[in-house]
Amino acid sequence: MMEEKLVSKVKDWIAVATALIKERLEEPLDVERKSNYSDLVTNVDKEVESFFVQQIRKEFPTDKILGEEGMGGEPVTDFSGRVWVIDPIDGTLNFVKQQENFCIMIGIYEDGKPVLGFIYEVMKKELIWGGPQVGVFINDTEINQISTDSLKDSLVNVNTMMFLQNDCHTQEIGLTSLGVRMCGCAGIGFKDTLLGRHHVYISYLQPWDYGAGLVLAETLGFVTIGLDNNKLDLKKRVPVLVTTPIIYQELQETYEEL
Amino acid sequence: MMEEKLVSKVKDWIAVATALIKERLEEPLDVERKSNYSDLVTNVDKEVESFFVQQIRKEFPTDKILGEEGMGGEPVTDFSGRVWVIDPIDGTLNFVKQQENFCIMIGIYEDGKPVLGFIYEVMKKELIWGGPQVGVFINDTEINQISTDSLKDSLVNVNTMMFLQNDCHTQEIGLTSLGVRMCGCAGIGFKDTLLGRHHVYISYLQPWDYGAGLVLAETLGFVTIGLDNNKLDLKKRVPVLVTTPIIYQELQETYEEL
Repeated sequence: MMEEKLVSKVKDWIAVATALIKERLEEPLDVERKSNYSDLVTNVDKEVESFFVQQIRKEFPTDKILGEEGMGGEPVTDFSGRVWVIDPIDGTLNFVKQQENFCIMIGIYEDGKPVLGFIYEVMKKELIWGGPQVGVFINDTEINQISTDSLKDSLVNVNTMMFLQNDCHTQEIGLTSLGVRMCGCAGIGFKDTLLGRHHVYISYLQPWDYGAGLVLAETLGFVTIGLDNNKLDLKKRVPVLVTTPIIYQELQETYEEL
Repeated sequence: MMEEKLVSKVKDWIAVATALIKERLEEPLDVERKSNYSDLVTNVDKEVESFFVQQIRKEFPTDKILGEEGMGGEPVTDFSGRVWVIDPIDGTLNFVKQQENFCIMIGIYEDGKPVLGFIYEVMKKELIWGGPQVGVFINDTEINQISTDSLKDSLVNVNTMMFLQNDCHTQEIGLTSLGVRMCGCAGIGFKDTLLGRHHVYISYLQPWDYGAGLVLAETLGFVTIGLDNNKLDLKKRVPVLVTTPIIYQELQETYEEL
């Protein structure tokens, strides 16, 4: 099956990228700023993305690549055919300051439809991967249940600025829940929601921040939506909600505009 | 040396407690609520504290024990002699909902003076331990440096309710920093500050939440103070700040009342 070959290839590439990241962590990082003071990029982000781009170009020369660091060339505007959505190091701030709590993320789409997603929390050695044709696994264990806890019995993970400004009711949602967590890494936000460690994740996300997670969340039956009433079309930065169907229903009943 | 024997004994007890916790995680937990809906205690918190109390009573029958779950008997009011401050499972909410991100914490004081501290993040297998006579170690590696980063180049870890209400300037501190993290576990808050993963930790803490961390932080030269202008005397719940000397100086220069 096509998906199984792809899974095997991507897992191999992630293993190589992991070795590269760990090797680079032995040396001082070359850190630059992008859009603002806390928006960092390192030599390692670029090198890892370049590695993935090279592998994809070699194996699948007609595929399109949408990567955070733009190493795949021109921005992708046409999502026909196969598109790879890559965040080489998601949680770069954590990578630089903590040397942990960061992920490699790869999403694969075919004509805009989710095919495969991979989120690897590198230092924790936790890979969540899969898609509609193969199921979703955490390392080698298949995931096949979604929590039925209500919001009041759940932890939630939210973006700091959204919480501070009470965007999308994040303060009320946080106060209704058992507790609020903030981790600074979309990959962990998605992965830990899908693993049931918290049941709500809300953050402003770029396409490469949600490309992989969207495949996995939809496959498992989680609700993943843009809170600006836009579908997640991989084209722009939007506030994203990931949650269980039961909590989504609670939120819809509580907040008219969700 | 007295401390070295104590270290060895406590490490052995932590290993036994860890095995017990992991065994209990195979079964459904018995969860009760304490002061409010999100203040949980489980059969495992009580069982682990009982285990430590039994070991201490057997080895050091005249020592006093201040434990979160009160398994050591009457509350400690007199801090003369040797006092053990124990949080059997710090981050019980994480323990129940995530089965990770929780710590065993033990602080040892002699006539109110710090002697030894142990914070063990159980599922991550990370033990930070030590005291003024032996130094501070993360597992087997001695820690002997404190970051000189300023607040604007640091991550900070703050309590959700304090951040929401801007208690102790937590919103301004968060916005000045590179980013805010929330983890729901005082042990991780202390440990990750001492390891340089973030450089500020602010939370309302009970004596058993800061008993172990205070020993370690003071030994390493971190600033650890009560933000209500009270010294940390192990007698009550206070808002606690843990940070590097450099950031403490910055905070003092910025906020008159700190």
